[in-house]
Amino acid sequence: MRTVYVIGIGAGDPEHLTLAAVTAMNRVDVFFTIDKGEAKGDLAALRTELLTRHVLGPYRVVEARDPERDRTAATGGYRAAVADWQERREAIYERMIAGELGDCGSGAFLVWGDPALYDGTLRMLDRVRERGGVDFDVVSVPGISSVQALAARHGLVLNRVGRPFTVTTGRRLADEGFPPGVDDAVVMLDAAGAFAGLPDTDLDIYWGAYVGTADEVLVRGDLQQVKAEIVRLRTEHRERKGWIMDTYLLRRRTGS
Amino acid sequence: MRTVYVIGIGAGDPEHLTLAAVTAMNRVDVFFTIDKGEAKGDLAALRTELLTRHVLGPYRVVEARDPERDRTAATGGYRAAVADWQERREAIYERMIAGELGDCGSGAFLVWGDPALYDGTLRMLDRVRERGGVDFDVVSVPGISSVQALAARHGLVLNRVGRPFTVTTGRRLADEGFPPGVDDAVVMLDAAGAFAGLPDTDLDIYWGAYVGTADEVLVRGDLQQVKAEIVRLRTEHRERKGWIMDTYLLRRRTGS
Ligand SMILES: C[S@@+](CC[C@H](N)C(=O)[O-])C[C@H]1O[C@@H](n2cnc3c(N)ncnc32)[C@H](O)[C@@H]1O
Ligand SMILES: C[S@@+](CC[C@H](N)C(=O)[O-])C[C@H]1O[C@@H](n2cnc3c(N)ncnc32)[C@H](O)[C@@H]1O
Repeated sequence: MRTVYVIGIGAGDPEHLTLAAVTAMNRVDVFFTIDKGEAKGDLAALRTELLTRHVLGPYRVVEARDPERDRTAATGGYRAAVADWQERREAIYERMIAGELGDCGSGAFLVWGDPALYDGTLRMLDRVRERGGVDFDVVSVPGISSVQALAARHGLVLNRVGRPFTVTTGRRLADEGFPPGVDDAVVMLDAAGAFAGLPDTDLDIYWGAYVGTADEVLVRGDLQQVKAEIVRLRTEHRERKGWIMDTYLLRRRTGS
Repeated sequence: MRTVYVIGIGAGDPEHLTLAAVTAMNRVDVFFTIDKGEAKGDLAALRTELLTRHVLGPYRVVEARDPERDRTAATGGYRAAVADWQERREAIYERMIAGELGDCGSGAFLVWGDPALYDGTLRMLDRVRERGGVDFDVVSVPGISSVQALAARHGLVLNRVGRPFTVTTGRRLADEGFPPGVDDAVVMLDAAGAFAGLPDTDLDIYWGAYVGTADEVLVRGDLQQVKAEIVRLRTEHRERKGWIMDTYLLRRRTGS
């Protein structure tokens, strides 16, 4: 049986790799890469570093190219265009897995952070399996997520004693405000800086960009007092590097 | 300056250790142990295995004994008894850090999973620092949490596309039902099996006990259909081993 590993490599620090990830990487014949998003240069560099440092045997790297997306479709046709694009993409992956891996071969995708957190690789592989054109096992190997890297650098515990917390996206925060039922919320994928629009005066923010990398920036404090500084830092670093990757915890001071 | 590392060692699988944890462990002069809870034999065994396998230099292990807790206090005196116990505990740790670590010495606590998730070590060290009797830096090293181990073994992504999820406790789930505002909830610290009391008929459960260890048990399915089996497995394994450690994801089928 073919095996496809989905290996979490941590959120930027090469030392976040687990021993299990190193073991899995050394079982792999073919590393599939899907480079997309603005941070692709950095992801590619980290991946190359990890392969060079930790994989002893021979291996191949196969670049999976995403199909072109039809961005001209009218709003009405948007869903259809995405579905069509996904279908073509799954067909490409199917051919790639069938063609590049022998009957008992092993392939791997190295994913940023943890494969279980806001990453599409596992879901995409599920859909490829459902197509039925090629049979393979999927093994997910957990990695240190950006949320954990952020918490560690701020010396934080994400929950308060016996209390829940929520992980959400910048888009949700912008649309719906601070999540209900919790006093602690981790926010990811916040391209627009939704924290700056919150009216709440009882929130502390623990913010970090490029956490775990040489470019790491950390800010913490009363949201209303430090938000302007964070907005300024985001603009500055995004201009300098061309992209930014940041995560933060919002913590209500009234909770105990 | 003294440094105290709080090192996440993963939730049971010795291979979940990160390279950063190995590096940190090799900087440490003294490993402090606080053995408590029912799983202490297994935690001690994992810790010993990791130290023997990965630490090259000489090191000492110092056992931190928790003070006796006055469990006879009447309900009214409960808070006072806990506060008193915490105060004595912090004094013990203060003396231990001051006495066992030289001025530039390094100590470490090896904690189960990730120090940022339902673990009291970082908070306790904050309080010891606030006492002012001994000065030290705290460095938190993230580890693979039981939640990530669970997700990986079930091949899950914790969130759905663009959607939030909540991490909560069995106690909260029993008191308040399924958390508001989300369709996905991870439940930890559920001694009483709160999932079995939920009336919801649109939930799937992804359950795991002793995840990452040789005793691992996994069950998934429609909550109402599999809950009796999980209750049976919990009783059976708790009797066999003397304790159980389990975590689960509840996922609403109506969310997409
Ligand atoms: C597509 S998600 C992938 C998350 C990843 N699977 C993980 O476990 O961290 C990308 C988001 O993760 C966060 N992120 C990833 N790496 C980060 C880093 N080094 N520092 C801060 N945030 C990061 C940002 O919120 C970013 O928008
Ligand atoms: C005090 S909390 C510590 C959590 C730990 N810091 C972590 O990151 O996983 C203990 C709870 O973690 C969960 N847990 C820890 N290890 C586990 C394992 N190997 N399998 C399943 N659940 C586990 C259980 O819900 C347990 O009640």
